[in-house]
Amino acid sequence: MDEFYMNIAIECAKNGIGRVQANPLIGIVIVKDNKLIGKDFYENTDKINLIEKVILNNNIIDMQLNKSTIYITYPDFKEDTIKYIETKNFSRIVSGTLNPEVVLMSSKVAKICGLGLQVKVGILENECNNLNEIYNNQFINNRPFVHVKWCMTLDGKAASYIGNNLDITTNKCYAYSHELRNKYTAVMVGINTILRDDPTLVCKHPGGRNSYRIIVDSKLRIQMDCNVLNDAYNTPTFIAVTHNYDKVKAKILQTRGVRFIICEEINGKIDLVNLMVKLSELNIDSVLIEGGGNLIFSAVEDGIVDKVSVFIGAKIIGGKNSLSPVTGNGIDFMKSGIPLNDISIKQFGTDILIEGYI
Amino acid sequence: MDEFYMNIAIECAKNGIGRVQANPLIGIVIVKDNKLIGKDFYENTDKINLIEKVILNNNIIDMQLNKSTIYITYPDFKEDTIKYIETKNFSRIVSGTLNPEVVLMSSKVAKICGLGLQVKVGILENECNNLNEIYNNQFINNRPFVHVKWCMTLDGKAASYIGNNLDITTNKCYAYSHELRNKYTAVMVGINTILRDDPTLVCKHPGGRNSYRIIVDSKLRIQMDCNVLNDAYNTPTFIAVTHNYDKVKAKILQTRGVRFIICEEINGKIDLVNLMVKLSELNIDSVLIEGGGNLIFSAVEDGIVDKVSVFIGAKIIGGKNSLSPVTGNGIDFMKSGIPLNDISIKQFGTDILIEGYI
Repeated sequence: MDEFYMNIAIECAKNGIGRVQANPLIGIVIVKDNKLIGKDFYENTDKINLIEKVILNNNIIDMQLNKSTIYITYPDFKEDTIKYIETKNFSRIVSGTLNPEVVLMSSKVAKICGLGLQVKVGILENECNNLNEIYNNQFINNRPFVHVKWCMTLDGKAASYIGNNLDITTNKCYAYSHELRNKYTAVMVGINTILRDDPTLVCKHPGGRNSYRIIVDSKLRIQMDCNVLNDAYNTPTFIAVTHNYDKVKAKILQTRGVRFIICEEINGKIDLVNLMVKLSELNIDSVLIEGGGNLIFSAVEDGIVDKVSVFIGAKIIGGKNSLSPVTGNGIDFMKSGIPLNDISIKQFGTDILIEGYI
Repeated sequence: MDEFYMNIAIECAKNGIGRVQANPLIGIVIVKDNKLIGKDFYENTDKINLIEKVILNNNIIDMQLNKSTIYITYPDFKEDTIKYIETKNFSRIVSGTLNPEVVLMSSKVAKICGLGLQVKVGILENECNNLNEIYNNQFINNRPFVHVKWCMTLDGKAASYIGNNLDITTNKCYAYSHELRNKYTAVMVGINTILRDDPTLVCKHPGGRNSYRIIVDSKLRIQMDCNVLNDAYNTPTFIAVTHNYDKVKAKILQTRGVRFIICEEINGKIDLVNLMVKLSELNIDSVLIEGGGNLIFSAVEDGIVDKVSVFIGAKIIGGKNSLSPVTGNGIDFMKSGIPLNDISIKQFGTDILIEGYI
């Protein structure tokens, strides 16, 4: 039964996707006499601790909590939460994962144990950890979690020889792409993608919110009338440039709400490692890179990519001049290619989604 | 239980792969008192009918056949087989599929029914039909069954910018590639693949046999010392040319065992539809196209491809000058791309195999 309720807590935690920037996704379920009496999830706008929130939102009265169990995917308890738990009659707490801030956590677990609660840790631990791959990344890398995504045909084309890149995949893949945008604090593209496709980079996921937009444009070549610059006050829009950018053009764009990130240069391009450090400083915990091919190759080559998602539309278009999803200079020998691990595959009708980790 | 034994018959039929050119794969199992007393498969070198073969090879005596059941994936019974069955005391025959030569078959089924045998048809029918997609093709298309296969990285590269194409996938994919060669009567490549990679195109599948080799080389540019020309006497090797080929060079190659197929020309290239007709005339029922990109695109564009297998190695190599698996002129709009259906996906470790039908 513990797994059953933890699964509900995990699904509940997902409601926080897009609403927890720099914090973990947490789901919580309260069960009494084998009956679910409340569930809720964390989001950044919360004013009270999550235990209090689930109790209030589900109209649970103190008497009901007697001999009840808390199921929580990730126990991110602050001192006030622990004090709050002390005032209630919970008898058991079941946690998906331990908190990576292990030392701190151990004492908290000890404290909770001291309260006379039974503690069980590690129920659906992998699932709970996967839920927080973005949050957990900060304890591993000193930069945002970076996810690269592209669409291509079965023969590896991201656009036809005339540059057409619509309808590679079906509506289901389109929906999943926007679900991804909702999940990431920032969406990033190279300047060529802006010049070529003029995307809005907004999120059309139902109930979703727009990500920050980051344009990698070392020489500030961006066209003044492009879509991403049209509503920079509403959707934070950053342009990453190198030191030699056009300051007059930048000044005009700043009056329109665009912010600039001035980065170190490496081989005539923006040093992406440096850009990632600056994004961390801006509290940006996660970045979805959507293209183009040059930016994706640089990101992979520079070792800043954690996860890759490739949507494949089951069609063939051919063309020696068609566009590849990953370009740049490339790697000379196949055996030196950047390998992906933990491959997972999903099928949406005739579309295929391959995901893996670098 | 019928499905259980039919599955054994299907697995048994697969022993005939590479040994049934222009004939169906057939597996057979004889069961008495719910006990398997014999199994066998068809191959082209058989001198006797398959019922007789299974009885002889399994040392079954007539008495054992009393009240026994024949399980057969595909009942390709000739008159002599039916006469042979008449002399035995089978009580039941279970068939996976009907024979596509429907009219003929109905009368045969009728005849078998007339013998007093119980007849059941359609056990694992899809699986039995899939087993014979090559054989069944002759009743659909007036040309060989054509299967296109390529390997690529996750970012759609068939070779790096320096032309390196080794180690895209792991050993398991390599093994599967050779299993495919064993299955097809002929393996076909474009001249550029010969000039660039100088492959042998032999089959290294354990217990396998070499396929015929077909080189599409309209202008007869092939180098005289390449691997495929070295043992043309042992492994039938064909070069498809257009009318304006170098007759002197061809004469020399003929003395070395190479055979020529003179085809119509279309847009300065070999008319692949015409080539397919000529291959049919040579009793070649199936062709595996392994590259290169131009030939694959022409084949797909000309509508002669039935099945596509794409092996994806989960690595990224990038490179704007890397080689694509499918080139040619290409299609202008994604929505006009050639779609694949009945997609199936297999995972071999970090390698992914996507297969579909056009």
